[in-house]
Amino acid sequence: MANKPSIPKGTRDFLPKQSLKRQFIFDTAKSVFQLYGYKPIETPAMENLDTLTGKYGEEGDKLIYKILNNGDFLSKANEGDLGAKNSIKVATQISDRALRYDLTVPFARFVVQNQNELNFPFKRYQIQPVWRADRPQRGRYREFYQCDVDVIGSDSLLNEAELLCIVSDVFDKLGLSDINIRLNNRKILSGIANATGLGEYFSEMTVAIDKLDKIGADGVREEMIKRGLPPAGVKKALDHISRRANADNLLRMLSSSLTGEQEGQKGIDEMRKTLKALPPNVRKKVEIDLTLARGLNYYTGAIIEVGHEKFPSSICGGGRYDDLTGIFGLKNMSGVGVSFGADRIYDLMEELDLFPTSLKAASDVLFINFGETESLECMQLAGKLRADGYSAEVYPDAAKMQKQMKYADACGYRFVILLGSEELSVGKANVKDMTSGDQSSVELRDLNIFVFDKLNPDD
Amino acid sequence: MANKPSIPKGTRDFLPKQSLKRQFIFDTAKSVFQLYGYKPIETPAMENLDTLTGKYGEEGDKLIYKILNNGDFLSKANEGDLGAKNSIKVATQISDRALRYDLTVPFARFVVQNQNELNFPFKRYQIQPVWRADRPQRGRYREFYQCDVDVIGSDSLLNEAELLCIVSDVFDKLGLSDINIRLNNRKILSGIANATGLGEYFSEMTVAIDKLDKIGADGVREEMIKRGLPPAGVKKALDHISRRANADNLLRMLSSSLTGEQEGQKGIDEMRKTLKALPPNVRKKVEIDLTLARGLNYYTGAIIEVGHEKFPSSICGGGRYDDLTGIFGLKNMSGVGVSFGADRIYDLMEELDLFPTSLKAASDVLFINFGETESLECMQLAGKLRADGYSAEVYPDAAKMQKQMKYADACGYRFVILLGSEELSVGKANVKDMTSGDQSSVELRDLNIFVFDKLNPDD
Repeated sequence: MANKPSIPKGTRDFLPKQSLKRQFIFDTAKSVFQLYGYKPIETPAMENLDTLTGKYGEEGDKLIYKILNNGDFLSKANEGDLGAKNSIKVATQISDRALRYDLTVPFARFVVQNQNELNFPFKRYQIQPVWRADRPQRGRYREFYQCDVDVIGSDSLLNEAELLCIVSDVFDKLGLSDINIRLNNRKILSGIANATGLGEYFSEMTVAIDKLDKIGADGVREEMIKRGLPPAGVKKALDHISRRANADNLLRMLSSSLTGEQEGQKGIDEMRKTLKALPPNVRKKVEIDLTLARGLNYYTGAIIEVGHEKFPSSICGGGRYDDLTGIFGLKNMSGVGVSFGADRIYDLMEELDLFPTSLKAASDVLFINFGETESLECMQLAGKLRADGYSAEVYPDAAKMQKQMKYADACGYRFVILLGSEELSVGKANVKDMTSGDQSSVELRDLNIFVFDKLNPDD
Repeated sequence: MANKPSIPKGTRDFLPKQSLKRQFIFDTAKSVFQLYGYKPIETPAMENLDTLTGKYGEEGDKLIYKILNNGDFLSKANEGDLGAKNSIKVATQISDRALRYDLTVPFARFVVQNQNELNFPFKRYQIQPVWRADRPQRGRYREFYQCDVDVIGSDSLLNEAELLCIVSDVFDKLGLSDINIRLNNRKILSGIANATGLGEYFSEMTVAIDKLDKIGADGVREEMIKRGLPPAGVKKALDHISRRANADNLLRMLSSSLTGEQEGQKGIDEMRKTLKALPPNVRKKVEIDLTLARGLNYYTGAIIEVGHEKFPSSICGGGRYDDLTGIFGLKNMSGVGVSFGADRIYDLMEELDLFPTSLKAASDVLFINFGETESLECMQLAGKLRADGYSAEVYPDAAKMQKQMKYADACGYRFVILLGSEELSVGKANVKDMTSGDQSSVELRDLNIFVFDKLNPDD
């Protein structure tokens, strides 16, 4: 293989600098999840194909990566289908497994399969990659991480409030305090549909509304009419959802226009209770947005979407689902959750330069290698630094000084320590602070203290 | 789908308790890697199929999971091969991508592909899952994590010494100080082969020796003879490798019996230098074992294997490879690395009960839910506890007290806080310490201090 190697389209290598920033996002999210009592789980990358098919709609099914059965996979394939080159039929004959498409369906499967070992309400977080055979484009990948947090087995609205607090806390810790959280409730949308004669078209209505950002109000109206929704109802429904007011007034107006709509009133009540349970610092970030629909049909109550003025699409979203585990045979397991878009958050934080400068790929200390005797001494000193928690390395080869200094510079070490035979004979090292450029002669036994003092100037 | 859902054979769900223990192993390893200046990278789960095929031997190739091309994949398949149901030929026509089989080949690909953005010597660690279509059995999975640490672009033996220090430190921090590290050098084995007339059979010899643990010395002898190696040479070679003595004596004996064997002498010298660079606490764990061969043909120098008397197979291993990137077109990039067997380490630590008791799934504090008013108050108090770094939850539903206490017990909370309307009216909460069983009445404003004092009894 003489060609330069490559990786599949839509996938990425992460270099150290990128990996460290990604770890920072995940670790920050985890630390908040844990404060709220959420527990980590992991599910396999491969699920049985029939666990995934039929859960993401027809378009979704096409984007699932199927894994070829091993061994003589064609022996089980139907000869007629093979002869006719019927890829769709043959696929299910030669593939029993697939890569997970999201973390939600595997979570539902997990809860049903492990229900006897879980304590409900079960609060879990899960940070793992998912795969979609989507057309790759800017910001859309075929392998990307999801970072989901859900509570299942409780229909209390305190869960919605708690998740909104988690969203607020995670973004605060990432330096993104200026997010906006949009909140809606599918029951309110359902009430609006019923009150405007669109009840039987509820699903079409939400799918159309979900496109509002992309195609505008006129586009949504056209699409609804094209799909056969009665124009008068469409107009009324769009009037409802386009209302703007502060939360109290909006909910009061809605309540009076949806008189007699039980489902809608329930949604309004849920929204009120959720907002009431929020502490002020979170409450101020949340606004009701009746145009928020979220296409996914499994949502039954609250729907949540998080945005930032500097980013074109949502960076976090979720909602309440009353029966996700039903497809796997476990009824009455209401859940609610949000998913953080780690890749988008990464892009946004890069753009706003929000990653802490302390996130660095290089170690605190690099010892220059002057040869075997000196380097063995340096290995010991490096060990002592590490024992105190400082990262330290000895350049492995006695390369030319210029090469070693160039390496130190490129990697971004804070200190470079020169310990040649002369320095060694007097028990002192020459320490160069790469930030200030200062050079100091330091007794070998004082090296740890010297590094500590320099790294903790305020103590 | 009415059947209970399942996951593919050889894969696993990880419940919170398991996930937390796995995280502990990974975090511990990471913290040590970082102290030694190793940097994280990530590569995609999917590689191009031709990046992987031919790198793991014929048997390995069969165990690679191939991903079915999306869309009308059969359109590119050869009709003759389809008609003949030739699975091997058709596989490469309908699959362009595959799941990574290990982290080593993707790392070599990564180094070549990203060489212009890396500073050499490049020290990386990588903790990601790999997939193999192996027959599942106890301790062998189809999806498992590898935890690799390598330095590439330097042939200094300080790297070998550093990696042995890392191995020692990681296992020390995991509570496994009583590991044994076996060290050998492929050049010494090569010298022995040359000196005993087995030079042209070197690969067969190492493959046979690699099975010593499983089939014993007689089995190895038989296998070598069956493979056509001259019996006189086989006897001599086995005499060589079965020698036991302290390192100095062993290397001296070897050196005199391999007089004139340049390669073998180089191996002896490498071994001496590596051992000399080790600090005493690491040195005492390392023994030379000339029977250590490791089947993988890409090793060219040191080979390392780590064991524990309570575990039947190795828990970590690696070695020096002089030309791994050569297959992707980049020559002269010597590397050395070790891979930690996270799943085996997990099993061993479970068996020895080594996971810290502080690794717990539950939060510090659970507030019992007495109804809407009380629970909103509890939400605020929980927020204050979290602000000080304590994990705290409010039970989301005003369920029966018995149910809530049962949940608290099952999950293992340290404190359960009862704040009913009566307690609320006097501004005091009833705090139950679940460890001691003690109940205390605590002023609401003193809650954080109370929790701090209880959790830090020595301060």
